[in-house]
Amino acid sequence: MTDTAFWWQNPCRMPDQQMGQAAQQRQQQLTKPTGALGDLEALAIRLAALQAKELPQINQPWLTLFAGDHGVVAEGVSAYPQAVTVQMLRNFLNGGAAISVLAKAQNIPLEVVDLGTVDLHLSLPNVQHLRLGPGTANFVHQPAMSVEQCQAALQAGQAAVQRAKANRADLFLAGEMGIGNTTAATALACALTGLAPAQLAGPGTGLDHSGVQQKQAVINRALQYHQDQLEAPLQALQCLGGFELAALAGAYIACAQMGIPALVDGFICTAAALCAVRLNPECQPWLLFAHAGAEQGHVLLLEQLQAKPLLHLGLRLGEGSGAALAVPIIQLACQLHTGMATFAEAAVADRPL
Amino acid sequence: MTDTAFWWQNPCRMPDQQMGQAAQQRQQQLTKPTGALGDLEALAIRLAALQAKELPQINQPWLTLFAGDHGVVAEGVSAYPQAVTVQMLRNFLNGGAAISVLAKAQNIPLEVVDLGTVDLHLSLPNVQHLRLGPGTANFVHQPAMSVEQCQAALQAGQAAVQRAKANRADLFLAGEMGIGNTTAATALACALTGLAPAQLAGPGTGLDHSGVQQKQAVINRALQYHQDQLEAPLQALQCLGGFELAALAGAYIACAQMGIPALVDGFICTAAALCAVRLNPECQPWLLFAHAGAEQGHVLLLEQLQAKPLLHLGLRLGEGSGAALAVPIIQLACQLHTGMATFAEAAVADRPL
Repeated sequence: MTDTAFWWQNPCRMPDQQMGQAAQQRQQQLTKPTGALGDLEALAIRLAALQAKELPQINQPWLTLFAGDHGVVAEGVSAYPQAVTVQMLRNFLNGGAAISVLAKAQNIPLEVVDLGTVDLHLSLPNVQHLRLGPGTANFVHQPAMSVEQCQAALQAGQAAVQRAKANRADLFLAGEMGIGNTTAATALACALTGLAPAQLAGPGTGLDHSGVQQKQAVINRALQYHQDQLEAPLQALQCLGGFELAALAGAYIACAQMGIPALVDGFICTAAALCAVRLNPECQPWLLFAHAGAEQGHVLLLEQLQAKPLLHLGLRLGEGSGAALAVPIIQLACQLHTGMATFAEAAVADRPL
Repeated sequence: MTDTAFWWQNPCRMPDQQMGQAAQQRQQQLTKPTGALGDLEALAIRLAALQAKELPQINQPWLTLFAGDHGVVAEGVSAYPQAVTVQMLRNFLNGGAAISVLAKAQNIPLEVVDLGTVDLHLSLPNVQHLRLGPGTANFVHQPAMSVEQCQAALQAGQAAVQRAKANRADLFLAGEMGIGNTTAATALACALTGLAPAQLAGPGTGLDHSGVQQKQAVINRALQYHQDQLEAPLQALQCLGGFELAALAGAYIACAQMGIPALVDGFICTAAALCAVRLNPECQPWLLFAHAGAEQGHVLLLEQLQAKPLLHLGLRLGEGSGAALAVPIIQLACQLHTGMATFAEAAVADRPL
């Protein structure tokens, strides 16, 4: 199989530059000083190009939560026990998790995809259990995933976007849950960027200083162990990633191929987005970045992607929570763009040229 | 009349520290790593103290838009003609302005108070015309307001909060409109803080470099002219402020006295908030800061107030638009605080102590 046979290397949809320009001209005619709506102006213009409509709208966001366990947890890289991954899946379903509250408050459909947790017999109502493995392997000693597992996880991301599309979603939000996944995301991001674990590894769910140092040491060992396998982004993902990281990367690329803007959440989602861009650079215009979080590596990865996130709230939760919080801002940006009067319509004097 | 006879010096309501502590304990038990919701945690805790409820809610925001004209426009300090103040009042009513769109999208009642524009015969439906004067006087040559005008404008702010309270508002948003009011706000802020016009004066609605320099020179002249009158915040407000600035300051103090959290918008509202805090320091806990805008002085004034704004979107529109954009974030912060399960409720393992 040659490289070009992978679905994720197929072309992405091109943003409609003409509609982007029409939206930009409209912004300049709205009854406000030029640029006065700050980042919301560029956002509306960008969504116009992505939706190929002068007046973009976000009416039907959709959220898929990808969960998976991580073998590297055996190295003591998380403040929480591994059982929390499955416990949180139940919490998502019962409405008690942050993302459940945020999705319900905004009528955002939330689906949960369990790619593979330590409990392979887990069967929860309304959860898709893909059972790719009992979590990933401990990547300090071997690749986190087999080639087949990695491809299946990427495809699970694509399948989620296909379901979103079938439900007429116009904005795809992804979230993630997996104890240990900041370690996997950091290792993957180090491999993709060449940045050192000391730059990217943070406290995750709450490691203290020595915990962070342990996490950095573990990642350094893994980078050394796999050093000959990390040139290609697909291999880096397979060796160091995780089921949910691969699913996120697959979802972001699928969004770009199917023409649905994707709203990227926190550090883990941003690492997956970086991987997606390396797998298929054409997907980048379709990625909107919801927020810059508290995890130190998040801001560095956003810089690598030249991303300008919407919110700066010091979040470090994941689950898609930062993405869900950005939805109302995006919707209001569209409504301002569409609903405001032009200087001519309102008979307001524009500034003299 | 002694100083203490002024209504704005009456005591403000004290936040309920016990409820704040109860809310803080609740935050620590919710199914997320401690602190993972970043600024939203402190926000929910603060609202719990202000509303004296462990589970705060924002169900009925209210927005009053204060408008007025400024005599200092004669000095060429604005990129837009003065007629735009009245033209924008019509635009607010017709739904074409940014704040109209944002209020309508969120079902926020919007009332417009015209404190005094150049057109003293103006009569618009659903607008309260207070006609305090044909705009303020040009404060380069004389006080912007008479003592009576300044007191009437402060009281107009109080009256707006009384109407909000009568309508069961649980969050008071204020906006402002007035060509030239960044110049008045900057002059007032310079007098209150001792910062120089060169630090605080920005492009406002769109001055170029030489326009900003002209604005700074005008403010310097005014500060020199009134230099013996600027010690007391009330006199500084009267000499350098504007009708809508005084109304905003009065509204913020009245919110604190009546127990309604106030959401402060951009540079002009922040200058008025600073004035309110100088007039009655007890009002400060009731002031929530919606955003840090693009105007250079805004960030400096927020620092003076040790304020941590919620949004950073590069806005510089005013009208209350930044405040209205922050409303969904505040509401979601309350919903997370109230709706999330505790570790015990969800049977999720907390991190080992």
